[in-house]
Amino acid sequence: MLERLKQEVLEANLDLPKYGLVTFTWGNVSGIDRDRGLVVIKPSGVPYEKLKLDDLVVVDLEGNKVEGELKPSSDTPTHLVLYKAFPKVGGIVHTHSPWATSWAQAGRPIPALGTTHADYFYGEIPVTRAMTREEIENGYERETGNVIVETFKELDPTQVPSVLVNSHAPFNWGKDPHEAVHNAVVLEEVAKMALHTFALNPGIGPMDQTLLDKHFLRKHGASAYYGQTK
Amino acid sequence: MLERLKQEVLEANLDLPKYGLVTFTWGNVSGIDRDRGLVVIKPSGVPYEKLKLDDLVVVDLEGNKVEGELKPSSDTPTHLVLYKAFPKVGGIVHTHSPWATSWAQAGRPIPALGTTHADYFYGEIPVTRAMTREEIENGYERETGNVIVETFKELDPTQVPSVLVNSHAPFNWGKDPHEAVHNAVVLEEVAKMALHTFALNPGIGPMDQTLLDKHFLRKHGASAYYGQTK
Amino acid sequence: MLERLKQEVLEANLDLPKYGLVTFTWGNVSGIDRDRGLVVIKPSGVPYEKLKLDDLVVVDLEGNKVEGELKPSSDTPTHLVLYKAFPKVGGIVHTHSPWATSWAQAGRPIPALGTTHADYFYGEIPVTRAMTREEIENGYERETGNVIVETFKELDPTQVPSVLVNSHAPFNWGKDPHEAVHNAVVLEEVAKMALHTFALNPGIGPMDQTLLDKHFLRKHGASAYYGQTK
Amino acid sequence: MLERLKQEVLEANLDLPKYGLVTFTWGNVSGIDRDRGLVVIKPSGVPYEKLKLDDLVVVDLEGNKVEGELKPSSDTPTHLVLYKAFPKVGGIVHTHSPWATSWAQAGRPIPALGTTHADYFYGEIPVTRAMTREEIENGYERETGNVIVETFKELDPTQVPSVLVNSHAPFNWGKDPHEAVHNAVVLEEVAKMALHTFALNPGIGPMDQTLLDKHFLRKHGASAYYGQTK
Repeated sequence: MLERLKQEVLEANLDLPKYGLVTFTWGNVSGIDRDRGLVVIKPSGVPYEKLKLDDLVVVDLEGNKVEGELKPSSDTPTHLVLYKAFPKVGGIVHTHSPWATSWAQAGRPIPALGTTHADYFYGEIPVTRAMTREEIENGYERETGNVIVETFKELDPTQVPSVLVNSHAPFNWGKDPHEAVHNAVVLEEVAKMALHTFALNPGIGPMDQTLLDKHFLRKHGASAYYGQTK
Repeated sequence: MLERLKQEVLEANLDLPKYGLVTFTWGNVSGIDRDRGLVVIKPSGVPYEKLKLDDLVVVDLEGNKVEGELKPSSDTPTHLVLYKAFPKVGGIVHTHSPWATSWAQAGRPIPALGTTHADYFYGEIPVTRAMTREEIENGYERETGNVIVETFKELDPTQVPSVLVNSHAPFNWGKDPHEAVHNAVVLEEVAKMALHTFALNPGIGPMDQTLLDKHFLRKHGASAYYGQTK
Repeated sequence: MLERLKQEVLEANLDLPKYGLVTFTWGNVSGIDRDRGLVVIKPSGVPYEKLKLDDLVVVDLEGNKVEGELKPSSDTPTHLVLYKAFPKVGGIVHTHSPWATSWAQAGRPIPALGTTHADYFYGEIPVTRAMTREEIENGYERETGNVIVETFKELDPTQVPSVLVNSHAPFNWGKDPHEAVHNAVVLEEVAKMALHTFALNPGIGPMDQTLLDKHFLRKHGASAYYGQTK
Repeated sequence: MLERLKQEVLEANLDLPKYGLVTFTWGNVSGIDRDRGLVVIKPSGVPYEKLKLDDLVVVDLEGNKVEGELKPSSDTPTHLVLYKAFPKVGGIVHTHSPWATSWAQAGRPIPALGTTHADYFYGEIPVTRAMTREEIENGYERETGNVIVETFKELDPTQVPSVLVNSHAPFNWGKDPHEAVHNAVVLEEVAKMALHTFALNPGIGPMDQTLLDKHFLRKHGASAYYGQTK
């Protein structure tokens, strides 16, 4: 069942330690089969070096387990909220990658400061508002998803494929699990460079909008001309 | 004698260079057999790449050598004070891991700034007071243990498994040597991210208490629901 | 055709991940055959680990493709402007290496702060002015080259073989592709150390001019005495 | 001739890239045979991965080449001044290791901020004064040695085995080439942690003198009790 998606989700999870995005088990990737409405996700607390295809868990969009021996990631309800709210998203990744997490802990969004950012994110990477006591105590992981969705009320998640959850860490997404991890790597690079940019120039404002447009649109959308496929 | 514990202590010591926590011989791990009141610890000044099972030293809780050719770690008296004061601790690790050591040198405790911290430490990671001339000159390593114990007068060492010794470096512990090293890795990540968080937001205060409770308690205690074992 | 140059360009491109200068495909190296007026350059968006000799693209100085199946790097027009304006340059490399990019994003030139800098750069590494809307919207990559050339109006590109493009990232060059990458590695080290130097001493000014002369000229020009070849 | 010393010097040079202290050829190690008054040193500009025993150069204390095909390191005159002034030194290493070099560029000495420092350096690691135009233009490398010796007028080089040359980079030494490199690794760790300590606590002063004494003297001198050899 869903063998190809499971393979993608397995590989995307194994890419987390490969790219230095995780310590121990601090991250998880999922992928969705939109036709069947089923999500494949990493089991909770299993080390990447021991993770096998059969360990992956299949759940439906209400969180009911459809296949798998193990418990799904404790963050599964967050993933499910995002899949339901963001219909073009095919893969989601959560990590505590250190540079992005430092911004999340600082409660600061990452402004677009240069073309590296602009190649992937069409503007600022937002930070969610602090969650309420009610949200934390009742359905915390689901409410984490809801506060992300609230943050994207005026934003297109395909144009800004990452978010910083306040006092917590980033979530990233993409058209499939592989692209979600790719975006998580980019976020970490962008977060690192933005921190150093502010160290060098604390008063720096966001980059020129025309330059942001140019870089984002040469890689995305109908007029893209970067790479070999278009 | 104590072969299984020695094996655990050996592996935990070898994990120090593997996780990038040590330069040269700047770290040591011990483990205790509570029934026999015996501690297995790294010998002093032996490089990890040459460390073998038979090099490990067994001492009793008064510091008398019970087995082993080599001298035990010069920090042995600190470990022994902690084992006596913290009855649930089964393994102790001392390193000069650079991010945590920077906080220790700065004489600042690490406040809980996000969920990575909250998943392992139920509140601030404390820093000890400066030691007196008397303490430094008479039984320095034992007194290092005593000043740590004093720091935990109002704290539960199972809820905050690390300490920063002022002007020195961290000690970490856990239910066994493996968990102690695990916590040392976490401390280093948390220390790194906290430093960067303050660089981005110098006025940031500790995280929301409800969120701290949520994360610590979803991994620890009777209501934990993270991972596969509960 | 141009087999030897292609081999050089391939190796120089593969050196980018080897030296940690690139994430994914964020960089490209080219080399020029001055006699034939032909440039060999990396194809756009091809991962380094899959890059083969036959993937390289040959273009003339007007950007017409002369050989190759793939599209050349989207930055090709920038390379071509530089080759035309800087006649002694034989290789060019563009990366988003993180330390140098942080300076580019901050819009700050890197002053000569020490002998590491002075061994390779005869003075400050400049940052370009912000590009105009007109420049960004019409022939962006060509205009990126033009703004670099403008920045070097009073500078000798053989004495300062790198530039920071404002809000973007560095370009580096050399007498051949290999030397261009070598300079890119140096720039990254110099950028990292300059950032930390300012953290330690925010008011530091440029190094002593006599010392700058001494170090640059012991490695470059008629009186050089470093290394084995002179 | 001097085969054993050459082997030591070769291994110590190869340790520079192994410990991450050098980029390209930015470092050199030498060793001295005090009985014969001969120094073995790395040749100038030769990459470590190609360095062989026969490439090493033997010079006398006046800098006359006694053996070897290649030119000795351009820093040889600095090494020779130090060997003549510091009679207990058996090995010297110069690198541009990035953290220590950042302090040298900032023109700041590294105060003793914690026990890692105190285990190896009995007090502040000094920075030389700026060199005069005369010193730079006439016998620059020899004068670099002289300004280091001047800096140690009131200091014991066996108690502080490193120096930061202003606007340049560190020199380190030890009883033999191996120990010199060991100290260079320690300096880099200490420099990194000191920078981060000041980031966390800009007003921090030097550590307690009693603690400095304790740590330095438990590893050095007649009362040392660290390690297995005493």
